Amino acid sequence: MQVSTEQLFTQARTHNGYRPTAVSDEQLRALYDLLKWGPTSANCSPARFQFVRSVQGKDKLLACVAPGNVEKIRQAPVTAIIGMDMSFHDKLPQLFPHTDARSWFAGNDAKIAETAFRNSSLQGGYFILAARALGLDCGPMSGFDAAKLDAAFWAGTTVKTNFICTLGEGDPSKLFARSPRLSFEEACSLV
Amino acid sequence: MQVSTEQLFTQARTHNGYRPTAVSDEQLRALYDLLKWGPTSANCSPARFQFVRSVQGKDKLLACVAPGNVEKIRQAPVTAIIGMDMSFHDKLPQLFPHTDARSWFAGNDAKIAETAFRNSSLQGGYFILAARALGLDCGPMSGFDAAKLDAAFWAGTTVKTNFICTLGEGDPSKLFARSPRLSFEEACSLV
Repeated sequence: MQVSTEQLFTQARTHNGYRPTAVSDEQLRALYDLLKWGPTSANCSPARFQFVRSVQGKDKLLACVAPGNVEKIRQAPVTAIIGMDMSFHDKLPQLFPHTDARSWFAGNDAKIAETAFRNSSLQGGYFILAARALGLDCGPMSGFDAAKLDAAFWAGTTVKTNFICTLGEGDPSKLFARSPRLSFEEACSLV
Repeated sequence: MQVSTEQLFTQARTHNGYRPTAVSDEQLRALYDLLKWGPTSANCSPARFQFVRSVQGKDKLLACVAPGNVEKIRQAPVTAIIGMDMSFHDKLPQLFPHTDARSWFAGNDAKIAETAFRNSSLQGGYFILAARALGLDCGPMSGFDAAKLDAAFWAGTTVKTNFICTLGEGDPSKLFARSPRLSFEEACSLV
């Protein structure tokens, strides 16, 4: 499928308001079917996703987020909760079958936490760009009560929330002015 | 610029071997000029990049990586060190000028560490997909001695290494068989 770097990067914006255009199951499946191919360490793929669209789900979510994020989430057709499975290594026999990669992690909680956080965040980057590739605008956020959100959405699992992200057809009238970025010289060096 | 989702996601592969095609300063600048637009929390943009191409730089890097990564890095025209600035908040007056976002972080080391790691990893995801958009193959890796690498490349700064990534024209003959991914049902739920 053809997309443009303008759509992915240079003209894409973080959205704060949405039009009432529904996002279908098919769109969410297509989103996962793109992002899942992004690389992770030993193919560990720790990210887990809950796509919150129902009134009940939204109410449960709104009770867990910072006041400044309530209206954005209320208006968005979908808010994704991007979690990380702290038992991701139990799936390595399936995901990385040619060697015993599970044993690299089992019992090493610090390594598990670091790997889950790094790689689910990388997958969060793939998620945002895959959504944009499919024409969905995004509003990633980290303003929420993590313990409350985990209890409300991931109880009985080994998943913890990494960040949340609204999805839909953005309302350009609600955009803020674009903030500057660091120059190449400020952020990069050639060695 | 037109790109395809095949090039970014579905047909892209993690590369282990490279052809001896040089990667120019212009390509590395174009890469940064795409990835920098990816969203980060409060535009904090914590990622820092060193592009290692010189013989001296490569030798220094090879002394810090896991044995299994030595040949890949030796062969790659560039290896990027993706770091995270643990003083990223000192740039918030420049990057998020409309409010005092620096005060949200200053003195809160746990929040700084979490924000730097999450957002520099998100930027790592943008980095990989921006490189692919520009026709560069990638080989992200986390097998290295972090303390040694930080001492060799980031001494005298507040930056710590997040992960490293080879870049160049991949050699398809060195690809491994593609590993499976989790199904939508295993990784996602509709709420």
